[in-house]
Amino acid sequence: MTTIGDMDEDALIALFAPRLPASDAEILGPGDDAAVLAVDGHLVVSADVLVESRHFRREWSTGADVGWRAAMQNLADIDAMGAVPTALEVTLCAPASTPVDWVLGLADGLREACEPHGVGVVGGDLSGASEIVVSVTALGETHGTEPITRADAAAGDVVAVSGALGAARAGYEQLARELRVDEEAVQLFLRPRPRIGAGLEGALHGATAMMDLSDGLVRDAGRLARASELELAIDSALVPVHPAATRTADALGAGPDALAWALTGGEDHHMLATFPRASAVPQGWTIVGEAHEGQARLLVDGAEPTSRGWDHFDSGTPQG
Amino acid sequence: MTTIGDMDEDALIALFAPRLPASDAEILGPGDDAAVLAVDGHLVVSADVLVESRHFRREWSTGADVGWRAAMQNLADIDAMGAVPTALEVTLCAPASTPVDWVLGLADGLREACEPHGVGVVGGDLSGASEIVVSVTALGETHGTEPITRADAAAGDVVAVSGALGAARAGYEQLARELRVDEEAVQLFLRPRPRIGAGLEGALHGATAMMDLSDGLVRDAGRLARASELELAIDSALVPVHPAATRTADALGAGPDALAWALTGGEDHHMLATFPRASAVPQGWTIVGEAHEGQARLLVDGAEPTSRGWDHFDSGTPQG
Repeated sequence: MTTIGDMDEDALIALFAPRLPASDAEILGPGDDAAVLAVDGHLVVSADVLVESRHFRREWSTGADVGWRAAMQNLADIDAMGAVPTALEVTLCAPASTPVDWVLGLADGLREACEPHGVGVVGGDLSGASEIVVSVTALGETHGTEPITRADAAAGDVVAVSGALGAARAGYEQLARELRVDEEAVQLFLRPRPRIGAGLEGALHGATAMMDLSDGLVRDAGRLARASELELAIDSALVPVHPAATRTADALGAGPDALAWALTGGEDHHMLATFPRASAVPQGWTIVGEAHEGQARLLVDGAEPTSRGWDHFDSGTPQG
Repeated sequence: MTTIGDMDEDALIALFAPRLPASDAEILGPGDDAAVLAVDGHLVVSADVLVESRHFRREWSTGADVGWRAAMQNLADIDAMGAVPTALEVTLCAPASTPVDWVLGLADGLREACEPHGVGVVGGDLSGASEIVVSVTALGETHGTEPITRADAAAGDVVAVSGALGAARAGYEQLARELRVDEEAVQLFLRPRPRIGAGLEGALHGATAMMDLSDGLVRDAGRLARASELELAIDSALVPVHPAATRTADALGAGPDALAWALTGGEDHHMLATFPRASAVPQGWTIVGEAHEGQARLLVDGAEPTSRGWDHFDSGTPQG
C-alpha cells in the first residue's frame, strides 16, 4: 500500500488536483499563488474543520465519505444565507502513513458533492501532521436576495425546517453499537444529504432568519432565538422525524428515541428558518413552532430543554 | 493556567472573536452561518496551513507570532497576484491542554498583521485536536489590473525580487543552534515582514509573472520557470542578501553561508517577478537575472541547482 510519506508533495498534488471539480465561477484554478473567481453580488464565505477521531473515524468513513461531508456541511452554510455556493478552498493535513488512496478518495468525495452544484475546489494546501485535519472554506454569492442571517426573526413568525431530522444520529448510533440495522441511516450519517438550494428557496419565500442544522435542532434553534432576541417555541409533536431514524430506534429496542435524535442529533444540515406567516413556508418544509416576544430562549413543549446537542471541544465521543 | 479544555467552545469564542480585526469590505462579520463581503473586481483566494512541530514550534513562537505568520504568508499570496487582500477565514485546531492565552495571542497576532491593511478575520471554526493546526484562507480583489500568474513570463524579461533574502533562514539557524547572535533575523523568522503592496506595485509596473518567495528563491524560481516554460537564469552575485543574514553567518562562523540562505532559505515572502525590461522594475526591487527561450528550468550561475528548498511533507526538521 502506497502511503503519502512515500511520495513528495508535488507528486501527490499531481495525482490529487485532477480529481477536483472546477468551479463555474473560475477564472483561474489551482496551482498559482491564488485562484481567481468572478463574483456577481455579495460574497458569502464560511469555514469548517473536520478532525480525525473527533468529527470522523477512519474505521467508519472512507476518504470519499470525509470529502463528501466536508463539502456538504460547508455548502449548507452558504445555502443557509440564501446564497449560491461557487467554490471551496481545502487544506489537508495527514500523517505520512495515510494511504494515497485515502487522500485521492477525499478528492473524489469533494467532487461528488460539489460537481452537481457547479462548485469547484479552486485551491488549498497540503501538510504532514500527526492526525488527519480537513479544513474547508466555502465561497458563494447572493443572487438578487439579501443574505439571511439568524438575527432577524420577528415575533409572530412561524418556525420551519426543510427536511426530516434524526437520520444522521440514527446512523451514528448504529456504528457506535456495531449493530447495523438500517443502512439508509448509516449512509445519511456518513454522507449527509441536505437539499442544497433549500436555503435559497427559503430566502426567495421571504425567510426572515435562517441557519443550517449542524448541531441539532435544540441547540441551533436556541442560537437563532438568542440572535433574534425572541422566544422560539417548538412543539415536538410537529418535528418531522426521519423514517430511517424511526426504523433504527425500533430495531435497536426501547432505549433509543427517534424523536430525541431528531431534536438533538445534529449533522442533518437541513435548514431551520422563520417565515412571516404559514402561507409563506415553501412546499416540503414543515412548521415546527413559532416565535414570540419574550426571553431570548428556546422552549420545547413549553419548557427549556436541558440537552444541548454536543460540544465539539469535548474530549468525548466523536459524533461526526 | 487556564486551558481551552477548561472552557466551552462558546465561551472561548466570546473571548477570541472581539480580538479579531474587522474587514473594510465587511457587510456581515463573524457569528452567523457565513460572513458577507462586498467585492469589487475579481475575487482572489488562497489557503495555507500551519502545523505545530512542522511549521512552528511552541518553544520558539508565541501564539501571536503564529497568528502573525499565518496571516502574513496568506496576505503575501494575495499580493503576489497583484490583488488587494480584504479578509481571512481562520480555522484553529488545538489540544485541550493549550493555554487560553496562547489562543488569544493567536488572535492578537492575526490582528496586528491584518489591521494595517484593512483586512479582517470574518469567520472560521474551532476544534479540539492532538496538535495545533491553523488553517487560513485569504480573500482579496483586483483593483484595475489583471491577476498576475506565474505562467506569463516572456523570453527577454528581467527577473527581480522585491526585498533582501535569507533573514528568516538566518533566524531559524540561530534558534536551531540555540545561539542567538542577531535578534533582527530571529524576529524576521518568527514574524516575516514582506511589504504587503509590493505585489500590487509590481502589477502596476507591468510585471508579466509573479509569485511570493515562500520556499526559497531556487525552488520558487524553478516553479516560475516551469509554469512559464522558459529558462530563468539567476546570477547569484546579484541576489540581495539581507544584512541580518550576513551578520548571523559571520557570527556563527565559517559553516553557514548567508548567500546559500538567501538562495534556498524561504519564508521571507518577498515578491519574485518578471518585467519586460529593466526600466520597468519598481524602485527598491533588485534585478537578479533574466528569462530566456530554452528548457523550462532554473539556472543559477549557469548551472542547475541541486538544493531545492525544502518539502513540507518531509518528516524532517521543522523549518518554520
